[in-house]
Amino acid sequence: MTYKPVRLGVLGLGRAFMLMLPTFRNDDRVRLVAAAAPRAESRDAFVAEFGGRAYASVEELAADPEIDAVYIATPHQMHADHVEALAAGGKHILVDKPLAVTLKDADRMVAAADAAGVHLIVGPSHSFDPPVALARQMIASGDCGQVRMVQAFNYTDFLYRPRRPEELRTEEGGGVLFSQGVHQIDIVRLLCGGLARSVYAMTGAWDRERPTEGAYTAVLDFEGGAFASLTYSGYAHFDSDIWMNNVAELGGRKNPANYGAARRALRDLDPDAEARLKQTRTYGAGAEPPQPEANEHFGPIIISCDRADLRLSPGGVELFGDNDRSFIEAPLDPAPRKPVIDALVEAVRQDSAPTQTARWGRASLEVCHAILTSAARRQAVTLRKQCGIETKETQL
Amino acid sequence: MTYKPVRLGVLGLGRAFMLMLPTFRNDDRVRLVAAAAPRAESRDAFVAEFGGRAYASVEELAADPEIDAVYIATPHQMHADHVEALAAGGKHILVDKPLAVTLKDADRMVAAADAAGVHLIVGPSHSFDPPVALARQMIASGDCGQVRMVQAFNYTDFLYRPRRPEELRTEEGGGVLFSQGVHQIDIVRLLCGGLARSVYAMTGAWDRERPTEGAYTAVLDFEGGAFASLTYSGYAHFDSDIWMNNVAELGGRKNPANYGAARRALRDLDPDAEARLKQTRTYGAGAEPPQPEANEHFGPIIISCDRADLRLSPGGVELFGDNDRSFIEAPLDPAPRKPVIDALVEAVRQDSAPTQTARWGRASLEVCHAILTSAARRQAVTLRKQCGIETKETQL
Ligand SMILES: NC(=O)c1ccc[n+]([C@@H]2O[C@H](COP(=O)([O-])OP(=O)(O)OC[C@H]3O[C@@H](n4cnc5c(N)ncnc54)[C@H](O)[C@@H]3O)[C@@H](O)[C@H]2O)c1
Ligand SMILES: NC(=O)c1ccc[n+]([C@@H]2O[C@H](COP(=O)([O-])OP(=O)(O)OC[C@H]3O[C@@H](n4cnc5c(N)ncnc54)[C@H](O)[C@@H]3O)[C@@H](O)[C@H]2O)c1
Repeated sequence: MTYKPVRLGVLGLGRAFMLMLPTFRNDDRVRLVAAAAPRAESRDAFVAEFGGRAYASVEELAADPEIDAVYIATPHQMHADHVEALAAGGKHILVDKPLAVTLKDADRMVAAADAAGVHLIVGPSHSFDPPVALARQMIASGDCGQVRMVQAFNYTDFLYRPRRPEELRTEEGGGVLFSQGVHQIDIVRLLCGGLARSVYAMTGAWDRERPTEGAYTAVLDFEGGAFASLTYSGYAHFDSDIWMNNVAELGGRKNPANYGAARRALRDLDPDAEARLKQTRTYGAGAEPPQPEANEHFGPIIISCDRADLRLSPGGVELFGDNDRSFIEAPLDPAPRKPVIDALVEAVRQDSAPTQTARWGRASLEVCHAILTSAARRQAVTLRKQCGIETKETQL
Repeated sequence: MTYKPVRLGVLGLGRAFMLMLPTFRNDDRVRLVAAAAPRAESRDAFVAEFGGRAYASVEELAADPEIDAVYIATPHQMHADHVEALAAGGKHILVDKPLAVTLKDADRMVAAADAAGVHLIVGPSHSFDPPVALARQMIASGDCGQVRMVQAFNYTDFLYRPRRPEELRTEEGGGVLFSQGVHQIDIVRLLCGGLARSVYAMTGAWDRERPTEGAYTAVLDFEGGAFASLTYSGYAHFDSDIWMNNVAELGGRKNPANYGAARRALRDLDPDAEARLKQTRTYGAGAEPPQPEANEHFGPIIISCDRADLRLSPGGVELFGDNDRSFIEAPLDPAPRKPVIDALVEAVRQDSAPTQTARWGRASLEVCHAILTSAARRQAVTLRKQCGIETKETQL
């Protein structure tokens, strides 16, 4: 079956939108027909590249009748208002992670999508990465037995990428939990079936000049008995991509000669100058990220099952069985993030929900908060808003 | 200053003794002068190789006046009785890890060494490995700032090495905690200053035929605020030595063609046959382990400090600073486990205690038990018998 392309609107033309460009340019199942953004330069750049309409407000975008769905790429704390406006306009929604900052906002978003009868997909998220999806398929096949333990860790320079001041304040969604932890949580939940029961965690905020969480370690356990260890550091020292074939998060090759570059770029910048530097990484203003050579990834992940361990890599999944080891490739698609577009097209054209719904995103957000709460109280936190996997996967 | 060699007795001529042979043969600061072991073959082999006296009982060894110290390499659950007998005989003691199985036994051992006024060293343990000691020195220098987070993990084939039946029963000291976890705990405690405050953990016993813990994940926190994530799996699937330059635990080179060998060797063996197979890996009976090419290690370990991350490798420590990375070598000594002999010689000749005393060993054992308890109760466990680092290190 072929359909006409999904007519997509975009809200927010910043860094996240830039990262979706290779997808939007190369996947002809979607067509960008409109955008809304406060800055005139980025609106002009949009119209110049894609044609269509460019609005200054979300309300105009929501009122445009020639749009099937909207990709929301505005700062976290705006997602809830924007979802409400767009859902009320009858648009299906792809909202970038995290769903929101507060669980109250997340509840509003679940309700808004339900009330309007639209699909809400939380993505892109690294839980859509092809090696993760492949591992999930291998698990669902039953060949490896039950998932018992997952270990996920990632050491990056996240805390030293250029930021606006609120991105360094936890209450406003700053720090590694809401922007980075949520990816790791999404992946681990997907691999373990989604229904986390409790979280125990420690967090670290070790740089007085950037006083939000830059690191954490957490233990999650799941319905069915699996448990997981998650560790993250964004302090720009060790880089765990050396254990991912020197492939960076977005699939590009890492250049070891760039060691220390993130810190160096910020040296002697005041907060204003830093926010301006961030601006240069935005649509219509700066250089675009390099074309990926391999699948995106979120650091080393090892899944221990009864009869095999699975190790994710940018190229696929390495299977360590009782007797043999083998490598199952996850091919790189010319349009990266294809699985995100798969989910969008299936939602819009076939009324079929992906795993990463609003409820799913709320559950991952609940874990982010539980990590902060557990670390503050020094005790385990029980989870109450978890969400399982209810997709076609069961028909594999 | 030169001294005459320490006159060493050995109790137990099994696998652990085999692993000390390259040390005893190559380090002329110790001389093996006596042994006690129940099996005549191993006693004969000892006398043939080292000369000296070979006894059938610990009492005879304890009564031998020509012995300065005894290396105890008997099964865990016997360590307490053997320490009591040898301390009463006035011998200094090197007892292989873990100190004991029960904390009650550990208390007896602390008391016995105190009462007799002898030194008790718990070792060998991977906390003596040169890269660990080097990292500890780098931390103590203060150059990297405080230790904030440690991540340690190890994926091995431990559970499928040949065992006697009790080694697969947790109550008797079987499973990965007492034999393997204790190494990881020792290392992490050394790196974080020793004084762990609490433990939260999950454990896995996933093979019905070997129904003891084969895996765990744990979070520890320490006085001073550091925290650590520890993960272990002995289920013989993924092998984390690929991230340690393909160097095995004991410093030998790993041959990837041997994938699955541990499970294959046990296939179709009943418990008796398996115990006999273990016997073939013992002194006087079987082939000795290959000569190490690199330092011993206990899996990947990353130490995040304020101003640098340190990564342990078999060759030394990789330092990831704010601006630069560098590698500090830990040379391989021709007599492996030299730091263990350093500790022994200093204790016997200079009355100077190492970090790894009976109290230290009890503290690591307390963490093993806390991991089991935390996993059973699903809550964090507070520690009460921890022990800091009180050595010459402060004079560095
Ligand atoms: N999945 C990923 O790989 C990824 C990567 C980066 C960011 N993100 C997510 O995308 C979101 C945006 O982050 P970012 O780094 O792109 O931030 P950004 O600041 O670069 O971009 C946000 C954009 O939204 C615009 N905006 C602000 N208010 C608006 C409004 N009322 N209407 C329309 N546009 C408005 C801003 O002008 C800006 O261009 C965040 O939720 C972040 O977590 C995801
Ligand atoms: N540090 C290491 O790398 C390492 C490696 C292996 C074992 N170990 C430790 O060494 C200890 C022994 O383990 P193993 O694997 O060598 O076991 P093993 O069974 O191979 O050896 C134990 C030996 O003790 C002897 N023995 C039993 N009762 C005795 C007694 N009353 N008097 C004297 N000898 C007696 C047995 O005959 C046997 O030879 C354990 O505590 C273990 O944790 C340490």
